[in-house]
Amino acid sequence: MGKMDNFSDWYNDVIEKAQLIDKRYPVKGMDVWLPYGWSIMRAVDAFTRSEMERTNHGEVKFPLLIPVTEFNKEADQIKGFGGEVYWVTKGGHNDLDIPLVVRPTSETAMYPMFSLWVRSHADLPLKTYQIVSVFRYETKMTRSFMRVREIHFFEAHTAHADYEDAERQMREDAEIFSRIAKKICIPYIAHQRPDWDKFPGAYYTVGADALLPEKKTLQIGTWHQYRDNFAKAYDIKYEGKDGQFHYAHQTTYGMSERLLGAIVAVHGDDKGLVLPPGIAPHQAVIVPILFKGKEEPVLQACRALADTLRGAGFRVHVDERDQTAGFKFNDWEMRGVPIRIEIGPKDVEKGSCVVVPRIKEDVKSLGGLDFGAGKVFVPVADLPGKLGGILDDFSAALLARATKFRDENIVYPKTIDETKTLMGLLRVGWCGTEACGKKLETTSEKAVLGVPQGDVKFQGACIACGTATTTCVDVAKTY
Amino acid sequence: MGKMDNFSDWYNDVIEKAQLIDKRYPVKGMDVWLPYGWSIMRAVDAFTRSEMERTNHGEVKFPLLIPVTEFNKEADQIKGFGGEVYWVTKGGHNDLDIPLVVRPTSETAMYPMFSLWVRSHADLPLKTYQIVSVFRYETKMTRSFMRVREIHFFEAHTAHADYEDAERQMREDAEIFSRIAKKICIPYIAHQRPDWDKFPGAYYTVGADALLPEKKTLQIGTWHQYRDNFAKAYDIKYEGKDGQFHYAHQTTYGMSERLLGAIVAVHGDDKGLVLPPGIAPHQAVIVPILFKGKEEPVLQACRALADTLRGAGFRVHVDERDQTAGFKFNDWEMRGVPIRIEIGPKDVEKGSCVVVPRIKEDVKSLGGLDFGAGKVFVPVADLPGKLGGILDDFSAALLARATKFRDENIVYPKTIDETKTLMGLLRVGWCGTEACGKKLETTSEKAVLGVPQGDVKFQGACIACGTATTTCVDVAKTY
Repeated sequence: MGKMDNFSDWYNDVIEKAQLIDKRYPVKGMDVWLPYGWSIMRAVDAFTRSEMERTNHGEVKFPLLIPVTEFNKEADQIKGFGGEVYWVTKGGHNDLDIPLVVRPTSETAMYPMFSLWVRSHADLPLKTYQIVSVFRYETKMTRSFMRVREIHFFEAHTAHADYEDAERQMREDAEIFSRIAKKICIPYIAHQRPDWDKFPGAYYTVGADALLPEKKTLQIGTWHQYRDNFAKAYDIKYEGKDGQFHYAHQTTYGMSERLLGAIVAVHGDDKGLVLPPGIAPHQAVIVPILFKGKEEPVLQACRALADTLRGAGFRVHVDERDQTAGFKFNDWEMRGVPIRIEIGPKDVEKGSCVVVPRIKEDVKSLGGLDFGAGKVFVPVADLPGKLGGILDDFSAALLARATKFRDENIVYPKTIDETKTLMGLLRVGWCGTEACGKKLETTSEKAVLGVPQGDVKFQGACIACGTATTTCVDVAKTY
Repeated sequence: MGKMDNFSDWYNDVIEKAQLIDKRYPVKGMDVWLPYGWSIMRAVDAFTRSEMERTNHGEVKFPLLIPVTEFNKEADQIKGFGGEVYWVTKGGHNDLDIPLVVRPTSETAMYPMFSLWVRSHADLPLKTYQIVSVFRYETKMTRSFMRVREIHFFEAHTAHADYEDAERQMREDAEIFSRIAKKICIPYIAHQRPDWDKFPGAYYTVGADALLPEKKTLQIGTWHQYRDNFAKAYDIKYEGKDGQFHYAHQTTYGMSERLLGAIVAVHGDDKGLVLPPGIAPHQAVIVPILFKGKEEPVLQACRALADTLRGAGFRVHVDERDQTAGFKFNDWEMRGVPIRIEIGPKDVEKGSCVVVPRIKEDVKSLGGLDFGAGKVFVPVADLPGKLGGILDDFSAALLARATKFRDENIVYPKTIDETKTLMGLLRVGWCGTEACGKKLETTSEKAVLGVPQGDVKFQGACIACGTATTTCVDVAKTY
């Protein structure tokens, strides 16, 4: 199962063997979430919810089905999504008078209600989000978590008194995303998308791109400044302190099961999945090493340790299945559990246990312990105090390893022709015109991701026309 | 807002004023969940999940859309649901070759996969569940939480080696449901439904019915024994220890947002919602009593108490809004928070706080404290140790009050004609024939709920034909 030999086969293989989803459902691109995969996704969702609560967003749930009359109110949305939505045209044995769109995203479902909710400046900012399935009638090749027809989706929708307050929200979204990305140990670069690639109806769009092993990028988060574009289409107005009515300014922020796709692709290895401790359903699995007639004291020690660790706030599982220890080792490696703990009869005698991290090369030291030999004997009484540090350092190692890969693959083509053969994040000068941007996309056979956000300095010339510029864009093959 | 004067108006009013859902979405029967309503529903779901984990069910998530080719494999399902499903017939601008059904329930989505998953006796029992939206094209009058077109739904699906193991599952379902009902303080009676009212495709069906203030019943849970009926339609076979292939036996167990409908209807009063402490998003709200110039020590005391109570495992909210204390009292009463805590400047001096339960009449004593006067002064230092007992007794009082109402409304008509005018749970003798059951339904203008489960003794005659019988059924108007 070689990750770097054939990424696609490896990716599908890991997803199947780690039992994340089952792809054999009889509609292509609609997968069945299996308990283990769903528990990982729900752990990501739980952290997202805690972030939204921290930032005073309310969780809502809007209906799935949108009347075509509402869907058609914003012209760019129709243009952007009209060709890829599912249509409900019949209820029971009757044709519906007003066909219903199965939501591809929820602007057109939510904003008729926002129009009722937003009356006065005191109602603003309105900060909401939901976690739901959205649907796209994909005609391209589907791939688990990355391009599917039923998408597990997060969407935040906000309304503000003015552009500046909506800009403040955009900065908050960027900060929330950075905390989520850190939790799942995925480095990324945020790009302001070029105008021809922004979200339908948006004033501008920022996308967060992760670099996967094939040196192609995956968009794993987006936030959009809508200005008052949708507010005008859906009549979202409020009475200001000045007694006048003003259109609200809006933003949205989206993520999806692609976060899990990135976790699989970036952290996994030839033995299978590697899960970031922050979202692993089991942060540690305890495997009893059993010898005939000596089972009971070992099982008791395992269960007692698990109880203690759970009491200290860790997610721990004891594997008591009727299988060999070797089978269990392989199984939990495949499923990516960060830490394995082994306890056998001799360990019970010594009051000790064996701690083995899921990855070896990048984790010589974890929580102050030397893992150079791959495993460490730890007194059972010490483990509750040490496990937090071990897991924190494990997370840091995952992030560092992935960041190194990303940074090594930011490349600087010298000519526009080079952009065709080079892979990775190609950083090039750009004069800012759509003509040069499109020429760059055609020549490179890649996408212009946009202007990298943050502290990126550039001094050079547009790679397409040679005009001097201080603006650069990143260019990459995308999923 | 009189609950007993006009239940329907009161019910809609409470749901609106407590901000549970917004009914103004432009598709009838598809409501928008607002943050407060959704947080209550999610608290119920969280307890359900803990129960499913306790009983070793795995949480899955199946696609929403079901190919008509799969949907049509089980004849009773088509008959039962064919007239009330939504149909997706178009993707983008194309007609779909195979129309897709928007799931009304997930048997026909899941069992093609069960057929792949169940191969050997070692794969059994297979115990799964999911929490998703299901859809029914209702033509009857809709009512929030009770009869809607997008339903927040829980469904467990299991497969077993034989009928007896499936029966064991039915008993487990009954036990899980009893724990959930206790958590939400809702008394119910489980009935084995008459054959003409069982779930499409089931061998037999048990429904749990709660009695609402109008003395009509609401079905709030069901569990079904399928025997091998679906296994034959979907080819779910396993190789037994005997080397032979056998069809699996299956069960399902369903609940929905009706649980929340019952909570609103059963516990609420003229001041609004009353939430069971087990699922209240805020078990206690702390209201600072502020006087100009003395705000800071009071706010600090409120926040400190909230932190202490949260540390002790309680869900507590401090209301720091810029509103009067009176406004806040009314608001949290409307939203049904079980316990209000007040702290003013004098309380800070004394190290004390005022504890006020949401209901008065039925809670003279809570956690060993005498609430006869409606409120109690409690030393702040004592509250973390006392609040658990207060909330437990509050729950017990809610359940006792509702149980008293239910028991007082189990009535015994003497003649079949009386069944038309009496309301409540009408318990009557039944000879067991469909002819007498149907006559009973026609005469009473009510539904035969079925044979009450549990320790119900009966000795008498069929109310329709006069034949001596030891079987009784309950009859009621239903929602």
